[in-house]
Amino acid sequence: MSIEQEVEILRKIPMFAKIEPAKLKLMAFASQRLTFKSGQALFHQGDAGDSAYIIVDGTADVLVNTPDGQLKVATFARNDITGEIAILCDVPRTASVVATSKLITLKITKELFFRMVTDFPDMGVEIMRVLAQRLEHTTAQLMAARAAK
Amino acid sequence: MSIEQEVEILRKIPMFAKIEPAKLKLMAFASQRLTFKSGQALFHQGDAGDSAYIIVDGTADVLVNTPDGQLKVATFARNDITGEIAILCDVPRTASVVATSKLITLKITKELFFRMVTDFPDMGVEIMRVLAQRLEHTTAQLMAARAAK
Repeated sequence: MSIEQEVEILRKIPMFAKIEPAKLKLMAFASQRLTFKSGQALFHQGDAGDSAYIIVDGTADVLVNTPDGQLKVATFARNDITGEIAILCDVPRTASVVATSKLITLKITKELFFRMVTDFPDMGVEIMRVLAQRLEHTTAQLMAARAAK
Repeated sequence: MSIEQEVEILRKIPMFAKIEPAKLKLMAFASQRLTFKSGQALFHQGDAGDSAYIIVDGTADVLVNTPDGQLKVATFARNDITGEIAILCDVPRTASVVATSKLITLKITKELFFRMVTDFPDMGVEIMRVLAQRLEHTTAQLMAARAAK
């Protein structure tokens, strides 16, 4: 795939929509395209986390270890970002993420992630929005779980 | 209180630690200092949300409505930020926040919030960290609530 085609894919991701094509080109060079087969893990809960992943195509499950086995807590699809918690909080991976189809991702190292949100504050705002939405959703699920007891 | 004293207070808040004093001075001018008595609400769940609050001094409870009444889900103290979800996600307040002591806050409008995180990307990164930590904590609580069923 040519850099021009990669830039076109990046431009369709809402998080990058406001970033100039010339800067997206730099990002396409700096990030790594990684493909996973269905059933393959991007990372496992407890791993050290040094990268985030943007899903370019395909789907993945988010699994958390419990005493009764793995519990699916979310599903990710095209344009979603995953793995950002470990690089923001300096903690091991808080969940496993496993491809449930052929999965194409853009792997972004911790260094590139911080460089991008510093250079492109609009991208930082979009990531804040994603985190705030997930926090709202998880809090609602927590309230429902407690009310059901 | 003088602007210089306000700037000194702002500099002690980790989120603003890396911002130049001259810019903090602008922020002290643009934000509004609001004091609440113990028992007074900063906002109620369901309200339209147009501002975030940074706690300068005192404590507050975060309360969520459930069929059995209000449930305390978190406590905030000095240097914490609250109210950012409603302005990031354009949703009504997802919880009530009530002072549990005399509470001094810095009220930051939606416009000022977005201007600050755009002008000072380091502040945006700190807010991402806070959101990621809260998400990790809430997910852990959700797992514990489900495991206890």
